[in-house]
Amino acid sequence: MKQSHQINQKAYKPAGGFIGHYQRLIKDVVIPYQYTVLCDEAEDTEKSHVIQNFINAGHALRGEDTGDGFYGWVFQDSDAAKWIEAAGYSLSIFPDKELEATVDAVIDLIAEAQDEDGYLDTYFTIKEREHRWQDLHEAHELYCAGHMMEAACAYYESTGKDKLLKVMQKNVAHIYHVFIEEGNAGYPGHPEVELALMKMYRLTKDPKCLELAKHFVDVRGVDADFYEKEAKRRDWTIWGNHFEDKEYGQFYAPVRKQKDAVGHAVRAVYLYTGMADVATETDDEALFEACRTLWNSITKKRMYVTGGIGSTVQGEAFTKDYDLPGDTAYAETCASIGLMFFASRMLEKETDRRYSDVMERALYNTVLAGMQLDGKRFFYVNPLEIVPGISGEAVTHKHDLTQRPKWYSCACCPPNVARTLSSIGKYAYGENEGTAFCHLFIDGEVSFENGLHIACETGYPYEFEISYRVLAGGKTLALRIPGWSRKNSLLLNGKSVSIPDGDGSWKADGRTLTLQKGYLYVPVQTGDALSLMLYDAPYYVYPNTKVPRLSGCVTVMRGPLVYCFEGKDNENDVLSLSLVEDGKITVRPYDKTLLGGTVVLEAEAVRTVTGNELYSMEQPKHLPCTAVAVPYYTWGNRGENQMRVWMPARGE
Amino acid sequence: MKQSHQINQKAYKPAGGFIGHYQRLIKDVVIPYQYTVLCDEAEDTEKSHVIQNFINAGHALRGEDTGDGFYGWVFQDSDAAKWIEAAGYSLSIFPDKELEATVDAVIDLIAEAQDEDGYLDTYFTIKEREHRWQDLHEAHELYCAGHMMEAACAYYESTGKDKLLKVMQKNVAHIYHVFIEEGNAGYPGHPEVELALMKMYRLTKDPKCLELAKHFVDVRGVDADFYEKEAKRRDWTIWGNHFEDKEYGQFYAPVRKQKDAVGHAVRAVYLYTGMADVATETDDEALFEACRTLWNSITKKRMYVTGGIGSTVQGEAFTKDYDLPGDTAYAETCASIGLMFFASRMLEKETDRRYSDVMERALYNTVLAGMQLDGKRFFYVNPLEIVPGISGEAVTHKHDLTQRPKWYSCACCPPNVARTLSSIGKYAYGENEGTAFCHLFIDGEVSFENGLHIACETGYPYEFEISYRVLAGGKTLALRIPGWSRKNSLLLNGKSVSIPDGDGSWKADGRTLTLQKGYLYVPVQTGDALSLMLYDAPYYVYPNTKVPRLSGCVTVMRGPLVYCFEGKDNENDVLSLSLVEDGKITVRPYDKTLLGGTVVLEAEAVRTVTGNELYSMEQPKHLPCTAVAVPYYTWGNRGENQMRVWMPARGE
Repeated sequence: MKQSHQINQKAYKPAGGFIGHYQRLIKDVVIPYQYTVLCDEAEDTEKSHVIQNFINAGHALRGEDTGDGFYGWVFQDSDAAKWIEAAGYSLSIFPDKELEATVDAVIDLIAEAQDEDGYLDTYFTIKEREHRWQDLHEAHELYCAGHMMEAACAYYESTGKDKLLKVMQKNVAHIYHVFIEEGNAGYPGHPEVELALMKMYRLTKDPKCLELAKHFVDVRGVDADFYEKEAKRRDWTIWGNHFEDKEYGQFYAPVRKQKDAVGHAVRAVYLYTGMADVATETDDEALFEACRTLWNSITKKRMYVTGGIGSTVQGEAFTKDYDLPGDTAYAETCASIGLMFFASRMLEKETDRRYSDVMERALYNTVLAGMQLDGKRFFYVNPLEIVPGISGEAVTHKHDLTQRPKWYSCACCPPNVARTLSSIGKYAYGENEGTAFCHLFIDGEVSFENGLHIACETGYPYEFEISYRVLAGGKTLALRIPGWSRKNSLLLNGKSVSIPDGDGSWKADGRTLTLQKGYLYVPVQTGDALSLMLYDAPYYVYPNTKVPRLSGCVTVMRGPLVYCFEGKDNENDVLSLSLVEDGKITVRPYDKTLLGGTVVLEAEAVRTVTGNELYSMEQPKHLPCTAVAVPYYTWGNRGENQMRVWMPARGE
Repeated sequence: MKQSHQINQKAYKPAGGFIGHYQRLIKDVVIPYQYTVLCDEAEDTEKSHVIQNFINAGHALRGEDTGDGFYGWVFQDSDAAKWIEAAGYSLSIFPDKELEATVDAVIDLIAEAQDEDGYLDTYFTIKEREHRWQDLHEAHELYCAGHMMEAACAYYESTGKDKLLKVMQKNVAHIYHVFIEEGNAGYPGHPEVELALMKMYRLTKDPKCLELAKHFVDVRGVDADFYEKEAKRRDWTIWGNHFEDKEYGQFYAPVRKQKDAVGHAVRAVYLYTGMADVATETDDEALFEACRTLWNSITKKRMYVTGGIGSTVQGEAFTKDYDLPGDTAYAETCASIGLMFFASRMLEKETDRRYSDVMERALYNTVLAGMQLDGKRFFYVNPLEIVPGISGEAVTHKHDLTQRPKWYSCACCPPNVARTLSSIGKYAYGENEGTAFCHLFIDGEVSFENGLHIACETGYPYEFEISYRVLAGGKTLALRIPGWSRKNSLLLNGKSVSIPDGDGSWKADGRTLTLQKGYLYVPVQTGDALSLMLYDAPYYVYPNTKVPRLSGCVTVMRGPLVYCFEGKDNENDVLSLSLVEDGKITVRPYDKTLLGGTVVLEAEAVRTVTGNELYSMEQPKHLPCTAVAVPYYTWGNRGENQMRVWMPARGE
């Protein structure tokens, strides 16, 4: 049984707080810049050609000269899709006639690039129409289709315009024909279409969407040799990828039998998201249990404290349990975004803060760290330690850059950040007939379909009072009490209500409050004012001793924010600092001039002083000092310097 | 000016102590087993074909059918060379008519495989004679020639037989003709021939050997694009290696301008060894200064505490300063052997314990760890941390095996260990006209060319009294006082003489003793008895804070032995242990039944107990306990388990 669903994009109106600042940057900086990239008008960036690809595909379909043909990655189409999705979501927050007209024009080109049977993929339409659907392993046709379906849903939700949605409905019918009616075997090399089909299903109620999504989930890995057989039927290839690596693409076993999160991390969480969607809509408990197992594999054994996933650059992949190196981490921004997707879908079936806690961890740390504070540069890779001279330079650390680079030719992360933050309401708020869920603390107004209309005000994640006013309606408000929040209370119409540690129900202010799986359920009615007071003190975090790379280490958090130590604040030498275990942490006042506005922490520490020898018999001096920490999401915004999340702990 | 030179192989007779045990294993196990490999008679091992290659090359030269042609790596010949070298050295310690006859027969085959112009390389002789000397980058012709020269010198020194030496003298004349007389450009892709030519020069005094060695050193990297030009002149290749990676093969700059130890670690130290040889023999101070710079680069910034070098499997190479990961270390056994070569050659020019201390560190830790205690299996890669489940399994840790594997098809390390330990006298003892040098504490008798004849007795590295008796002669005995030895004294004919910390001279027992650069110079005469008493207590070692991976860590040593902590001795969980910084270390009595005879250390420690969560806000418990350590060279001899050299330190 579905317990809730994400709100509609238009149900949420941001108030311009912490996340609102990012949404504004995306509208003002990211979306316009990306459009110049798509049109090959951006300077100092490899050409994208993606708009031209759609134009050229239209030419090809009309039997005209395609001019300069196809250019770019085989999945180039998805860049346009992600841009439309981000722009669509953004339009619902910041109406903009000019941008909307631009998107409409792009959609017109896309519609003209669709084959009469519904097929839509510029690579094959321009280059080799006869090779359609012959290389599911590498060719990304279903991946690109999936992203365009997501774009269609987003644009329809935000603007009510259905041209792209109709294009993609026709495309779904085509895919349905190929894989269901004609019965062609196979499953997508890069999962994505599953979750996209489920978005289409939820929007259009077309049962073909559900059937197709379920089909791709069900057949994945059942014939683990499918790609090998497929390759043998072809005399061409895209890259010549190894079909032997069955973990890379999560097809080593049927999905219901997969126990460990393995392979390419983005593919993994996109797949699991689609699996959760299908499990929820079809009440498939066995499939949902597989999702829980994979969720646990990630979050209990294979996730960085920042919500980063994928420990290695080799295959951008998960490795083994407890293998979480900070300095060589891959921890792709897109993978943490995918983890938010997965968390949000698990929440729909099972209201439990273990999902929303992780969603919040990924959002406020890795996802936000992915974007420079000015919105102009992006990290694809999110290490937990930077040492200039080694990071970005040693052959094992080439991918761990000390500074955010400009747009890549493989432009996955920036538009992914853009579409996620522009639709943050969907992750923050859920609902069912009787209840409105507040999973994340994002200020703004929400008009739930169930009739409840609330306003949320908060300075979160730097302030820990979250105030809700009920503007209209009478339903239950379900507020997440984060796992990290040790002491919690509620001010209900001015009366203080303490919140117990364990699950249970009690009476307060003439109503019955319930705490269950980290959610506080409060019946509310028009005019009610609620303030949730969460734990505002910084706290140490201790790793499980099974993580070899974190032996003897601690880090510091406050609220959902992981902190880190940069050279800039610590005499350009973070490596010789240790934190005093459970020592005093001082919270500096909010500084609006620093790093876009932030709170600095000062932790009791020692600085170890050794001589020049590489190894010495002399016991070093340990000088008491203060270590200065800033939120991880702000790192790398003040020039190249050392950075470290985990610090050695000194016993007292 | 040369200050000393290695002793002749026959000058040293081992007494069968600690290293003697290994020499016996090499004679009894390694040399016979390797011979079965060379002859393709070993079970469960990929065929070598190396003997057959020489036979087939002989056929080719006589215009006969080569049968099954060439098989193996392009450098396959060197396996035979290293085996002959090891067997030759071993024969001087353990005379064995049967083995000697076997070697003679192999040498006969090699002689028959030599072309009439002196060329010797079965790959090209069998496969493509017309391609000789066209691919210095990859083809290893000079590398194979170098190893065969070393074999020739060793076999001549040990047995007085000169057949192979003559073959290689003819080969030198051929190489001289090609590169000097004909003036062909280029330098060896894998350095080795330089040091080998210097061995030939020191043995035969043939000035062509010196000139050739100096030539290859001098031209290296002067034309850094040589390999690219060379490749463009060919229409064939061995592997298609990238000539763009100029650091990999140390040709990015003329050797005198190279500042950092870079690239493939074995190539690097083989090159530096040849450079030191040439510098010493030609009194080339600028070249020697380059050697000092590279020595410092390695030993002050790029060397593991075990004497391992080469931080990454990617190119088996050095990376960047202070990048010394223990769990993903490459630290090839051969590279530490090469570091011993380099140290020994630096010592010849400059008597300074900074060279011999490192030589000892490499020998007693990485080199000995390379061989299983029973002599049957070998580590090529020597990590400083093993965690089953990650080590050998995660894609980034595939090379870091938890157990020593059997013989590899690329059989570099086992014969390299064999030849080095069988000629240990050369590394332990040096001499000049007036002085006999004791660089390492290896028991046995030594008859120096300068007339001094001594006997050394010691239970080192487990006992720290080293006794010398002067059996004949009157010269100066120079005893190394290791840098790790904090308190030292000498018993000189029964009288205790304390040894000061700093350099200087003083009178004792009617003679003038001098301490200089870590060497104690004692004039001795027949009948003198000296006992050197070194520091016998275990000690903590603290890493420089610039090493990111060792922040907050310590390890424990005793004498030259680095210790490690294995799961076997520590409740199968090393990862939750921390050592109490500067806490008490207890020395257990020598246990002859454990790990071939060893001394176990017990260090004051705490065991950290965390819950099941990956990250927790709960401060963990730290329970006082004892951590049990065994010498690093003994690790991995009791089945798969955790192992860690560096441990987090707890402040007191």
